[in-house]
Amino acid sequence: MKLLRHGPAGAEKPALLDGSGKVRDLSGIIPDIAGLVLGDAELDKLRALDPASLPVIEPERIGPCVGGTGKFICVGLNYADHAKETGKAPPEEPILFMKATSAICGPNDAVEIPRGSKKTDWEVELGVIIGKRAKYVSEADALSHVAGYCVINDVSERAFQSERGGQWTKGKSHDTFGPTGPWLVTRDEVADPQNLRLWLEVDGVRRQDGSTATMIFGVAHLVSYISQFMTLEPGDIIATGTPPGVGMGIKPDPVFLKAGQVITLGIDGLGTQSQTTVAAGD
Amino acid sequence: MKLLRHGPAGAEKPALLDGSGKVRDLSGIIPDIAGLVLGDAELDKLRALDPASLPVIEPERIGPCVGGTGKFICVGLNYADHAKETGKAPPEEPILFMKATSAICGPNDAVEIPRGSKKTDWEVELGVIIGKRAKYVSEADALSHVAGYCVINDVSERAFQSERGGQWTKGKSHDTFGPTGPWLVTRDEVADPQNLRLWLEVDGVRRQDGSTATMIFGVAHLVSYISQFMTLEPGDIIATGTPPGVGMGIKPDPVFLKAGQVITLGIDGLGTQSQTTVAAGD
Repeated sequence: MKLLRHGPAGAEKPALLDGSGKVRDLSGIIPDIAGLVLGDAELDKLRALDPASLPVIEPERIGPCVGGTGKFICVGLNYADHAKETGKAPPEEPILFMKATSAICGPNDAVEIPRGSKKTDWEVELGVIIGKRAKYVSEADALSHVAGYCVINDVSERAFQSERGGQWTKGKSHDTFGPTGPWLVTRDEVADPQNLRLWLEVDGVRRQDGSTATMIFGVAHLVSYISQFMTLEPGDIIATGTPPGVGMGIKPDPVFLKAGQVITLGIDGLGTQSQTTVAAGD
Repeated sequence: MKLLRHGPAGAEKPALLDGSGKVRDLSGIIPDIAGLVLGDAELDKLRALDPASLPVIEPERIGPCVGGTGKFICVGLNYADHAKETGKAPPEEPILFMKATSAICGPNDAVEIPRGSKKTDWEVELGVIIGKRAKYVSEADALSHVAGYCVINDVSERAFQSERGGQWTKGKSHDTFGPTGPWLVTRDEVADPQNLRLWLEVDGVRRQDGSTATMIFGVAHLVSYISQFMTLEPGDIIATGTPPGVGMGIKPDPVFLKAGQVITLGIDGLGTQSQTTVAAGD
């Protein structure tokens, strides 16, 4: 099942994508793709609906595929080949950091280049959306706490991240630095989250082309691991790290984003995103 | 004006503390101490009420003094005397990190010692609660975006924070690591946020006794600074750093918390907190 949210930012309504690619309104059925709606029993109720019985709509804007996110947790250097490109040793246990939830935006919303930014960069990532509260869960049980998966662009300002007094969150949290969606694809439709191709292009130039097969710590391990340090709640998002090909890793000279460019990215079975870069507004 | 929230965790109701120390019900007036209620005009409406016209209640539990928090942003090493006790140079610009919003709890709720923790520590901090959206705001304008102030205990697991692969959030985010309240004291009642005494005791032993006068970066600077990196929204909390006297700084041997202890802390004019430590539950 592919769930989505559409409408103006902050006032999105729930919908599903049917088998023929039509968007079907769910606003008469559930209040949002958020919170307790993400539990297995509630998702089963949506699965039991006949999509043909739901009104077809043509969204003007697709929003982030989940609402009410309390935490936007990211994993650093989680691809063996990306760790290598940054020149750092692969981590011995997952590196965690937070993006501000205010950075979450729709998959095709414009991405802002912050004022004074010289090093805004891209990162295609597999997003994991929590469906059921998880605290001290085992790796064996971890995936039962996952509602589904999505595409995320973990947009990052490298100077703010690493040259402004430590702690990466400073470079990860600008408005629009977290395009999320288009779909929340429920976990039953993702046969193996560790075998998904993911890619990203800037102005049509392929920059990232990897596979979740080269993750150092897989999704089940990450959910279990994070749940030792904080309680995961329905609607929380985990961005699981990026494969090689980010701008700061390009040799001989790093390449960063400027206003007026187009970023496109996608993951097998999870859809694609397309963002135009713009100068930051107030 | 002193605002509070009372009732079971996750289902708190709004109230105010009147001039004689009675708690008065606001649930017939506003839905919560959260979001748009924190704006100046809405707070003025509450100020215009006659407290005597509101029902007196006797809360069984006081919850965190603000609801719907989207971001729980912390400032590291922000007291000149605390930076010195950690052996680190004072930062040249504010160090920012995030606590999980799921760590927020009431001021007198039990504080969990995480499984496997050997270094759970305390930090009394001045909390700043945002009342109005702030993006790229000047220092001169910053305080007009503040709804008010509160007491926060930025409970921290030092091994998780610094010995588990980088990024402090891992040691800052356990459930109950963010007691917040008892009151949100509106900014008009805090004549000078840079001249507040703050203190903390463990089992009756005074461990921290400082003043916000020794902050390296004051509240107005912090709000302006953070707003360059992320948009602050109503209900967001900034924990502005801790004065000297944390457990890891005690000489010759650091002192950490174990289950069964009592932490009490307070800030002039903002009230006090008291927490018993317990082993982490599921």
